[in-house]
Amino acid sequence: MLGYSFMGKAHSNAYARMPVFFYPPPARPRLVAIAGRTEGKVKEAAVRFGFQRYYTDWNKLVADPEVEVVDNGLPNDMHLGPCVEAAERGKHILCEKPLGRNPGESQAMLRAAEKAGVKHMVAFNYRFVPAVRLAKQFIDEGYIGKVLQFRAAYLQDWAMDPDVPRTWRFRKESAGSGALGDLGAHIIDLSRFLVGEIGATVGIAKTFTGARPLPGDPTKKGEVDVDDAFVALVKFTGGAVGSLEASRFCAGRRNFQRIEIHGTEGSIGFNLERLNELEVYSNREQSDRRGFKTILVTEADHPFVGKWWPRGHIIGWEHAMVHEVYHFFDVIARDGRVAPWGATFYDGLRADEVIEAVQKSISSQRWEAPGLAS
Amino acid sequence: MLGYSFMGKAHSNAYARMPVFFYPPPARPRLVAIAGRTEGKVKEAAVRFGFQRYYTDWNKLVADPEVEVVDNGLPNDMHLGPCVEAAERGKHILCEKPLGRNPGESQAMLRAAEKAGVKHMVAFNYRFVPAVRLAKQFIDEGYIGKVLQFRAAYLQDWAMDPDVPRTWRFRKESAGSGALGDLGAHIIDLSRFLVGEIGATVGIAKTFTGARPLPGDPTKKGEVDVDDAFVALVKFTGGAVGSLEASRFCAGRRNFQRIEIHGTEGSIGFNLERLNELEVYSNREQSDRRGFKTILVTEADHPFVGKWWPRGHIIGWEHAMVHEVYHFFDVIARDGRVAPWGATFYDGLRADEVIEAVQKSISSQRWEAPGLAS
Amino acid sequence: MLGYSFMGKAHSNAYARMPVFFYPPPARPRLVAIAGRTEGKVKEAAVRFGFQRYYTDWNKLVADPEVEVVDNGLPNDMHLGPCVEAAERGKHILCEKPLGRNPGESQAMLRAAEKAGVKHMVAFNYRFVPAVRLAKQFIDEGYIGKVLQFRAAYLQDWAMDPDVPRTWRFRKESAGSGALGDLGAHIIDLSRFLVGEIGATVGIAKTFTGARPLPGDPTKKGEVDVDDAFVALVKFTGGAVGSLEASRFCAGRRNFQRIEIHGTEGSIGFNLERLNELEVYSNREQSDRRGFKTILVTEADHPFVGKWWPRGHIIGWEHAMVHEVYHFFDVIARDGRVAPWGATFYDGLRADEVIEAVQKSISSQRWEAPGLAS
Amino acid sequence: MLGYSFMGKAHSNAYARMPVFFYPPPARPRLVAIAGRTEGKVKEAAVRFGFQRYYTDWNKLVADPEVEVVDNGLPNDMHLGPCVEAAERGKHILCEKPLGRNPGESQAMLRAAEKAGVKHMVAFNYRFVPAVRLAKQFIDEGYIGKVLQFRAAYLQDWAMDPDVPRTWRFRKESAGSGALGDLGAHIIDLSRFLVGEIGATVGIAKTFTGARPLPGDPTKKGEVDVDDAFVALVKFTGGAVGSLEASRFCAGRRNFQRIEIHGTEGSIGFNLERLNELEVYSNREQSDRRGFKTILVTEADHPFVGKWWPRGHIIGWEHAMVHEVYHFFDVIARDGRVAPWGATFYDGLRADEVIEAVQKSISSQRWEAPGLAS
Repeated sequence: MLGYSFMGKAHSNAYARMPVFFYPPPARPRLVAIAGRTEGKVKEAAVRFGFQRYYTDWNKLVADPEVEVVDNGLPNDMHLGPCVEAAERGKHILCEKPLGRNPGESQAMLRAAEKAGVKHMVAFNYRFVPAVRLAKQFIDEGYIGKVLQFRAAYLQDWAMDPDVPRTWRFRKESAGSGALGDLGAHIIDLSRFLVGEIGATVGIAKTFTGARPLPGDPTKKGEVDVDDAFVALVKFTGGAVGSLEASRFCAGRRNFQRIEIHGTEGSIGFNLERLNELEVYSNREQSDRRGFKTILVTEADHPFVGKWWPRGHIIGWEHAMVHEVYHFFDVIARDGRVAPWGATFYDGLRADEVIEAVQKSISSQRWEAPGLAS
Repeated sequence: MLGYSFMGKAHSNAYARMPVFFYPPPARPRLVAIAGRTEGKVKEAAVRFGFQRYYTDWNKLVADPEVEVVDNGLPNDMHLGPCVEAAERGKHILCEKPLGRNPGESQAMLRAAEKAGVKHMVAFNYRFVPAVRLAKQFIDEGYIGKVLQFRAAYLQDWAMDPDVPRTWRFRKESAGSGALGDLGAHIIDLSRFLVGEIGATVGIAKTFTGARPLPGDPTKKGEVDVDDAFVALVKFTGGAVGSLEASRFCAGRRNFQRIEIHGTEGSIGFNLERLNELEVYSNREQSDRRGFKTILVTEADHPFVGKWWPRGHIIGWEHAMVHEVYHFFDVIARDGRVAPWGATFYDGLRADEVIEAVQKSISSQRWEAPGLAS
Repeated sequence: MLGYSFMGKAHSNAYARMPVFFYPPPARPRLVAIAGRTEGKVKEAAVRFGFQRYYTDWNKLVADPEVEVVDNGLPNDMHLGPCVEAAERGKHILCEKPLGRNPGESQAMLRAAEKAGVKHMVAFNYRFVPAVRLAKQFIDEGYIGKVLQFRAAYLQDWAMDPDVPRTWRFRKESAGSGALGDLGAHIIDLSRFLVGEIGATVGIAKTFTGARPLPGDPTKKGEVDVDDAFVALVKFTGGAVGSLEASRFCAGRRNFQRIEIHGTEGSIGFNLERLNELEVYSNREQSDRRGFKTILVTEADHPFVGKWWPRGHIIGWEHAMVHEVYHFFDVIARDGRVAPWGATFYDGLRADEVIEAVQKSISSQRWEAPGLAS
Repeated sequence: MLGYSFMGKAHSNAYARMPVFFYPPPARPRLVAIAGRTEGKVKEAAVRFGFQRYYTDWNKLVADPEVEVVDNGLPNDMHLGPCVEAAERGKHILCEKPLGRNPGESQAMLRAAEKAGVKHMVAFNYRFVPAVRLAKQFIDEGYIGKVLQFRAAYLQDWAMDPDVPRTWRFRKESAGSGALGDLGAHIIDLSRFLVGEIGATVGIAKTFTGARPLPGDPTKKGEVDVDDAFVALVKFTGGAVGSLEASRFCAGRRNFQRIEIHGTEGSIGFNLERLNELEVYSNREQSDRRGFKTILVTEADHPFVGKWWPRGHIIGWEHAMVHEVYHFFDVIARDGRVAPWGATFYDGLRADEVIEAVQKSISSQRWEAPGLAS
């Protein structure tokens, strides 16, 4: 495990719980080592999360011969190096999103992983929310017909407080972008997962707070050079149109990820703040009894969720990560395929290309097509 | 009253109910005459809705000396002529939206009305929904601070049935545009009402059903040359950014007009399918008890609604038209101002300019600024 | 029309709108006369609501030979006299609920109406909410199978203000009971309409504010001798069990009438504050896609509502009264039957018997069966 | 750990996760032993959940000197013996609900625990849902004033399938009662937690499916002698009135635990299917902006939940058990008090007394007071 803060905690939890709930597990994760820069903290994390040892240098972890799978939860500017190195050493890799700070980095990681023949996955965890996976199944079986329109917004409000320090997430150098690459990456991936490839986009972005206290010295401020919010139009290559939006400045929205998909035969809606529910509408029902239906996605025949508790006993945000880790270990154990249920580095690259196209369109003030450069 | 179908019915109802519920009325509407093309139908409408006489020629109605106020509910290509004529004859005018098929027509109507010194109003009736008006009051008093982000979608699904005939609403010549001018006009007006002027826009539109049965002969089909759906990004001159969307193809959405506004201090949400409710969020509350609040807008101290029933007894869609008519008659009686609560022909022109800019941006594939031509 | 305040206003509106929206009407109401005690007010009401004349004595209205239908919107202690008199004079009668202050009064009214052979109806207007009527249709067709459980609560909060004066609604002599007969009567009727007869009940009631300012002299207080809230268990003769509850003291509930019905095959839910919606659940759907569905009851093939506006254009509280009046006039014109869609005086009697049984059970502290006395 | 099925799994998970998320933990649970009847299954459970050893005889586990805390997740008829034995051996005890099959059993367990001076707790886990705990805080601080009315319903539908076998939950001998003691116990405890002691009750119960397939031989059926559903009225000693209801036969309700509390100053609502949300209403707000507010209970300053993830990242059903276990270990480590936040055996007794009173009232057909026998 690379990193011990938010994602380190979340992923470590997933490794611990997976073999208990997906029992017997496809392979039992051994928590060999965790790496991080600050020794005191990484040492504590090792004890707390149950790793056998810790490193303050990621190179050593990646070089550790006992490590077979590397989970990269480091900031975005620390994705490329460790992932390429891990691949070259033949280790399977699960990397946090966005994969690279730009398509070039993602391309390099993809090539390294493919060359090494290791399993590779980007932590687009929301593909593993049961309701999202059920939506995918419904769409694949034609429940809503051909998709015509799409709408996704990932809204948070934590950055509205001007005292939130200028962490790596607010710097282009370390993060690549702001809400766009952080939150937007998720809904770009879900739009590809649920609808298909994006052929063109045009967007706009805003930075509402231009300077923030430095983490080391709050009496000083540093520039914020990434977006706090963006909105973009998208044309899918399959013909659908829609919009993508992400923000860290939508008051009252904590982790509000709303997705709406309209097809020729019905509609689907999802909201991450109520992630156990899926809304569906079908034109095929009798006309006097049509309506949006809220499915509580906790049934034994719903994806993943039957592994937990009896119906109606809802799961939380972190459960999707357990499902994700289960899938990755299952793929490794079976020598199977990550896609289409999981996102590979190829999916990571495609998401980065869309992000780049949105950025280009902001500069050019016109529609841009993702991924032509590669 | 010009027109006897949907809007004729809705406006006639408003004139009949206004003096009963806004009692005593600022002026009591006398239903002098109604005009429409088909004699049998207009005659029946006169009886049904209580008009003293009917005309099959709008010119005669506009020329009728007893008529003091002209309400134009005709198709969009019949806005210009009757409105200009009515203005020149010194009659106050309430005209359905969109005002013109293009800004040029709206400009002509505005000039005629201003020159004649008559009161003029565009039937942007949603300004008169109590919850929308309350939203406006909250925004004006600073409840959500400075507006940062905006999102409006007006979604219906009635056109998904391919057997829906090619009425005037599906032809550019008669309608100007499709969902854009029909539904989009409403949310463009509300965005101006609630947030401010739009400085630039870029959009995309789709026509999902390219040909439809002719109203006169359903065995033949005629081309549809307007949009079934559009999405556009907008930059407000005040700094906010957002999106506008309208569709006649969103399965399960009957009359779903969703508006979300996020400011520095809070957020506001509204949905026309639950028009008696307003959702508000304030950052100013104590941190452990913040949340979106659903106000049931039926209190005596809420706009308009106290004129109807005791609290909790909800109103319907058409009540906003009663409020609109009340406002117009009150303005006429007091020789007051339609704006800012009601939309004047100037507001109609501004909306048409945004519609035109969206259309231009679809052709040019880039951002366009509304209204620079005038 | 007897009475000019809340119900007078609501019913007068219904008579005015019915022939416009249910066109051509089964019979066109002529608003002959309105009666009320205070001359200034009843005179104004006549002008405002469009009655030809007014009376300050209900006897004169009932005796007026031009009056063919009497609508009794007077306080509960003024139901018996005018209704019996009207029946004896051969006039059809629509009377507000509860029919009598006790079953004895209701029995007398029923007998008088039956003897005279006039059409009689109790204004249980919520039977005419399209969503409630649709629920009835679904239940009748077996959509939820055999009913097992029932839950109804009618909650308001207007009486929480201690300055609300002691009107007739707070006195046993004039009202019979408090929330029980006022709000409870509605849900008792709906439980009979939707589920069936109540075989036994046991309840509890509370008066939270024991004295209130006198309407004539607010410096003095008068005793409140009716309930502010009640809850009761019920056993239906068909085997279902459930609860009934009404209150004027539930903070935040304005006109919240929630009904939930569970059967062997599904469930139905309704809330008057969102009266355009009906929630349904069916066990018969495929197991991975079951869920509560929200039907927006505004379709052309839904009861009544197609007479108003296109789908999605919601109706308000008072529309149910228009439907009720339409039904009554249709019955009169066709010489048809009020029941089962409308409530007759028999239904009014049955409701009063349940009310009485609840009251008895409060005294006896045990289960009581309604209506054995008759 | 006694028991390895649903509760065994849920509690074992709680012990594993508590020290990771409540770090550093007040005391680190060592999973010494798990006991169950079927050797194959208990052996597997020991491996799966991480217990050092297993027993097929609970006596041996309770006698194991390394065991300091006994968690009793066995069927209801196996609560008394192990709990008394554990207490006598000086072990702290966490026991599933309902504590006894009747108040006599609970009384015996309470006396044994008090005599031994051990910490004792009943697994009323919903006290540890952050939203419920927040509700308690709000009520304690006077947010809704004095409580007037209460309504709780715990609705499930899993027993509607007639093929659900006659497990111990359907037999009076093993379970004591049906929905009443299983689901009803939870809301009885929450009503005491949030409102206060219940002074009297009258109820009704139904068994909808009278015989079910035997677990060992599904070709044969055995009688069901417990309730599938109950409803009861309650009078609180503090003056409030309300209703309690539980069912295993409410189609579409999976784990729907709805609680509504109305006070002189406001109202509170909670639903377990959306357990991250709390609804609150306050009369103290300005009249034009009152409404029910949905608090997403995921803030750092909300109870417990800050230990998990950033705001908006919702938790699941099982998290409350982690909080519960944290509380119990914290109490043990500090030699503190379980109450008022946790439920002691005294609370278990009180709940059993209410259950018994409901049962008595069903027989006597009248109101009964809980707990006079003790």
